[in-house]
Amino acid sequence: MKEQILTGDRPTGPLHLGHFAGSLQQRVMLQHSHQQTILVADLQALTDNGHHPAKVADNILNVVADYLAVGIDPDKTTICLQSSLPALPELAMYYANLVSIARLERNPTVKNEIHARGFGRAIPAGFLTYPISQAADITAFRAGLVPVGDDQLPMIEQTNEIVRRFNHIAGQCILEECRPLISKVPRLPGLDGKAKMSKSQGTAITLGASAKEIRAAVKAMYTDPNHLRVEDPGQIEGNVVFTYLDAFHPDIAYVKSLKQAYRQGGLGDGKTKQILEDCLQTLLEPIRQERERLLSDKSMLVDVLRKGTEKANIASHNVLHDVKRALGIALF
Amino acid sequence: MKEQILTGDRPTGPLHLGHFAGSLQQRVMLQHSHQQTILVADLQALTDNGHHPAKVADNILNVVADYLAVGIDPDKTTICLQSSLPALPELAMYYANLVSIARLERNPTVKNEIHARGFGRAIPAGFLTYPISQAADITAFRAGLVPVGDDQLPMIEQTNEIVRRFNHIAGQCILEECRPLISKVPRLPGLDGKAKMSKSQGTAITLGASAKEIRAAVKAMYTDPNHLRVEDPGQIEGNVVFTYLDAFHPDIAYVKSLKQAYRQGGLGDGKTKQILEDCLQTLLEPIRQERERLLSDKSMLVDVLRKGTEKANIASHNVLHDVKRALGIALF
Repeated sequence: MKEQILTGDRPTGPLHLGHFAGSLQQRVMLQHSHQQTILVADLQALTDNGHHPAKVADNILNVVADYLAVGIDPDKTTICLQSSLPALPELAMYYANLVSIARLERNPTVKNEIHARGFGRAIPAGFLTYPISQAADITAFRAGLVPVGDDQLPMIEQTNEIVRRFNHIAGQCILEECRPLISKVPRLPGLDGKAKMSKSQGTAITLGASAKEIRAAVKAMYTDPNHLRVEDPGQIEGNVVFTYLDAFHPDIAYVKSLKQAYRQGGLGDGKTKQILEDCLQTLLEPIRQERERLLSDKSMLVDVLRKGTEKANIASHNVLHDVKRALGIALF
Repeated sequence: MKEQILTGDRPTGPLHLGHFAGSLQQRVMLQHSHQQTILVADLQALTDNGHHPAKVADNILNVVADYLAVGIDPDKTTICLQSSLPALPELAMYYANLVSIARLERNPTVKNEIHARGFGRAIPAGFLTYPISQAADITAFRAGLVPVGDDQLPMIEQTNEIVRRFNHIAGQCILEECRPLISKVPRLPGLDGKAKMSKSQGTAITLGASAKEIRAAVKAMYTDPNHLRVEDPGQIEGNVVFTYLDAFHPDIAYVKSLKQAYRQGGLGDGKTKQILEDCLQTLLEPIRQERERLLSDKSMLVDVLRKGTEKANIASHNVLHDVKRALGIALF
């Protein structure tokens, strides 16, 4: 039996090149070696979008189309909708009795996110407790491996703490601990060179970006602000064009020679941007076309999601039943 | 259509005379005039028994037997098991995004209970958030009327706050506000005269108490500590024997005459206790016998609970579906 992997995305916007480099490519690989489940995490997306649910609802099928367009195969990977898996909130309810509010407030990932969102004391209960829901997601699929960024390791710790506590209470090994799969790909910066691609801040190139949008995005990209004349030496570090060439250009040796030329002087930003643009146009054109084709038949996307969700319901319900039996409340 | 009433009990022990006077008798009446749903609230019971689930699991069928033994009719009242109603945790998950942690911490009922249980900062997340689960329970059955003690009014307020917030977001009236039905029966004190009957502190008479246990309990009952000789005047106020006679003796005029005699002097505690004991033996004997008969056939009790839960699943799932449709995530 292949090892279980759980991964997913919050459907709050279309996926972008950051997702492609950071997780989507990896998932296309992993679906051959592992039993992979991908959650369209609408419930989690609602934890900080409770007052504008349309932002979540409107993006569910976009995200499914993104998955299929990059090559995730629904026959190999279970793609499912979190809000249609009742076992997940049920498990979360049991786990919530085993985690203190103080413990949740100490979670470094959540702390940072509370700060980033400016919640302060008005933090919604659903947001503070979402690490518990994540533990439910992970354990519901008996996931042994969970791809995460290194900033999300506290989530894995919290999950394993719940697993150990539950197994202790049950007096037997009902749930399994998981381990993180930390991506080796560094996080792709935004067009402006800032930490993260962000759709809302206009610093992301989405998978469905038009040829024109791609061109404009590359044109606007941050390079070396001190590289004023073509003949001057330029800097590679922090130069977004080269970061993207590293991430997406298939010819590593060619990129290496470009870097050398840029450092020595004589290679202009216009030229490097043209190379990157060509590369991204080539990469994204078939994805964009496939995405459009998929989105023109929404009922097919709903069907893919329904079938995956049915499979996921069986798996997660089995775990829930084991949990309830261990608690002694599985009466029927 | 009859108005919906939701009520329930945490199955952490057999029900006692406090429940009988405070709620069970009322429910036997209400099942004729209202559409009544009774939750065996095992999920809620686990919020402060997460580490000893057997205390909850072992009492589920006892509580069902208590209901039937006092005359709650499963053909009139829907008796259902909270943990077998997946719509409840699902609704709670959506509502949790609309309530801040600060708001939960301000809830006076929860504040008192945190203090009473000595949780301090180690309060389980499930316990702090249980008012949200209660809102899920109430709204899942479109309950217009919720029998509560006056110390639980903040729970009703919290529910209606969630209802208004959700309807505002939905832009339509999906959920209904509820009103409290405050019991006119004062809370029955424990045998020791303290505020509340408590099984764990040995100050309760359970519905299944044996004749011997009833006798011993009445003997141990707190009366007027200054009423030393039979001929002395005695005090009625705080005298548990008279409080119980008021609650359970069918002949009000007779109890009134006893009170007069006790106040004047000449009526001893031995006599009043004998009258109360006779009254309680008469009240509890048929309940005890029926309870024993019911508990001798557990599969029948499971069956009653299963049938009620099936009905409750249909009702609560309809509300969940309305909620998900309003959020735009009811894809299938």
